[in-house]
Amino acid sequence: MSIIEDNQRTELSEIGEFGLIEVLTKGIEIQNKSTIKGVGDDAAVLHYGNKETLVTKDLLIEGVHFDLTYVPLKHLGYKAAVVNISDIVAMNGKPNQLIIGIGASNRFSAEALSELYSGVYLACKNYGVDVVGGDTVSSNSGLVLSITCIGEASKSDIVYRNTANKGDLVFVSGNLGAAYMGLMILEREKQAFKVDPNMQPDLAGHDYILERQLKPEARDDVLRILKEAGVKPTSMIDISDGLASEILHITHQSKLGATIYEEKLPIDITTDLVSKEFAIDPTTAALNGGEDYELLFTVSQKDYEKLKEIKEITVIGHMTDEAAGVNLVSRSGTQVEITAQGWDAFLKKDQD
Amino acid sequence: MSIIEDNQRTELSEIGEFGLIEVLTKGIEIQNKSTIKGVGDDAAVLHYGNKETLVTKDLLIEGVHFDLTYVPLKHLGYKAAVVNISDIVAMNGKPNQLIIGIGASNRFSAEALSELYSGVYLACKNYGVDVVGGDTVSSNSGLVLSITCIGEASKSDIVYRNTANKGDLVFVSGNLGAAYMGLMILEREKQAFKVDPNMQPDLAGHDYILERQLKPEARDDVLRILKEAGVKPTSMIDISDGLASEILHITHQSKLGATIYEEKLPIDITTDLVSKEFAIDPTTAALNGGEDYELLFTVSQKDYEKLKEIKEITVIGHMTDEAAGVNLVSRSGTQVEITAQGWDAFLKKDQD
Repeated sequence: MSIIEDNQRTELSEIGEFGLIEVLTKGIEIQNKSTIKGVGDDAAVLHYGNKETLVTKDLLIEGVHFDLTYVPLKHLGYKAAVVNISDIVAMNGKPNQLIIGIGASNRFSAEALSELYSGVYLACKNYGVDVVGGDTVSSNSGLVLSITCIGEASKSDIVYRNTANKGDLVFVSGNLGAAYMGLMILEREKQAFKVDPNMQPDLAGHDYILERQLKPEARDDVLRILKEAGVKPTSMIDISDGLASEILHITHQSKLGATIYEEKLPIDITTDLVSKEFAIDPTTAALNGGEDYELLFTVSQKDYEKLKEIKEITVIGHMTDEAAGVNLVSRSGTQVEITAQGWDAFLKKDQD
Repeated sequence: MSIIEDNQRTELSEIGEFGLIEVLTKGIEIQNKSTIKGVGDDAAVLHYGNKETLVTKDLLIEGVHFDLTYVPLKHLGYKAAVVNISDIVAMNGKPNQLIIGIGASNRFSAEALSELYSGVYLACKNYGVDVVGGDTVSSNSGLVLSITCIGEASKSDIVYRNTANKGDLVFVSGNLGAAYMGLMILEREKQAFKVDPNMQPDLAGHDYILERQLKPEARDDVLRILKEAGVKPTSMIDISDGLASEILHITHQSKLGATIYEEKLPIDITTDLVSKEFAIDPTTAALNGGEDYELLFTVSQKDYEKLKEIKEITVIGHMTDEAAGVNLVSRSGTQVEITAQGWDAFLKKDQD
């Protein structure tokens, strides 16, 4: 899909808006029956019949959500798509279509934008999603990405955030904090590069956490595993802003509290090792780091037997009365309230 | 819906992300049966049954698509919504839902964002559209707006761009070039203000063209008029980038040519007068000015009798063989090829 050739640079002004759209959209192949009409008109046309239509969107802004100093454009495109695909998955839905909006200045060549798109196309191919539209506009500041993902689910399959019940068990897929520690490694190398531009980045041995940061995946495999086990979660959300923020969404919307156990938090050994290197508590990375795109969900206690042997998921706590609050029980047994990150913390985290 | 009080300024850091979302989304009322679940989850849930789902999105960037020096935030919100609603209308569809993405820096207060949202909500109310989701993120440069609009149409009602036939008549709704001349007035006052910050803007007598620029409307009324007349267009597009660009989309996609007559172009008397003041050819404003959000559509010749008395629309030309090209016949009878604006022209137009 990429049109990049060695050292070639085609200015956007050379090929014009029509030319750019042609370069970026050629080779699109439709994979879903629900896609009636894709790119090329005022709107995409989709047919969902008896299924519910799910729609989500995310806005990604250079300097806030990504740093082109160390994020390759193809990875950025891949991640931007996955972040939205993950939102459909978090509704227990199947992602089907995606629309890309890009704001880019003249510092980007047609080849650079094509590289970015190739990442979006790769993610779409991997998840069986059709690219059905786009909006490519000028930006006189940074690169801006806006992705809309559309998916489907049967009415009875959809899992909301506000439907957890008291006593439900809280599960999380995979492990937490890895994406944040990957970001720490990239930031460290960026600072070192500023001091000595001839340095080679020292990324050795950090493949796993770097991939968690640069090329996250949506956990549609976990949906299949749960379905095979015959379990439908009572509530679900994906972890984009960190476990703390997401469990607060579920408790707030379900009008419940929750107790989470620090010792139960699944943290990969490499995350743990790098955390020590940076003197960051791995629990903090898991709670506030974000960008893991794992699934956080609740299930009825009666379903525990069906899930306890599944290695892809971990039980980390349970839902309580609203009055009991949302708490973390530390390894030492003390109970700490889990609080929402403020806007400043949010800004800081993203801009670090 | 607005929470603005006199001189109040609430910093985003004061109320936090959760607080801001609450401020911005309270008071949303669902108007459409197809909206199953709106704001507050990973994705909106919609039910379209036998109807086709239409999805469109636009990205609007400060300094490129709007200038906050002279665009009030409420108008900006209104226009951003209408631009997307117009895309659904241009498919002969009914707009139903809208998702707002905003990237804003700390220079915007909660009151300012609330004012922006109030414009979006007003447009949604006027067009019967539900706000079903949003994504509010930090931006460390300008304001970025990303709107997704979702609508519906019966399969047999949808009008595409690529289905015009040779010999079809080309129609346009309303009049052209007014929004561009409104922009010229605003730019002139901005320059005057730069020279003398104590000046009062001289906008008197320009209400109509200023409203066309600042508060455009989508022509869903024209869809109703056509339906009542028993005419379904053979192709249709809305005029966002100017008549030249849009007729090229229709001819290119329908693999046809077109002949447009300059003398037939509907240009309002105020547009004409202001054009003279600025020494701009009103035909140029109509062809390349853009942002009129009128409908450009083709109809079969046999339908002409049903439409000829309708004052909201004007026949401006006809579709030809592809080999004949896309041409404008000037008042003097000479034929000029209509060409696409290049990327530079596009940039220039938007940034002027």
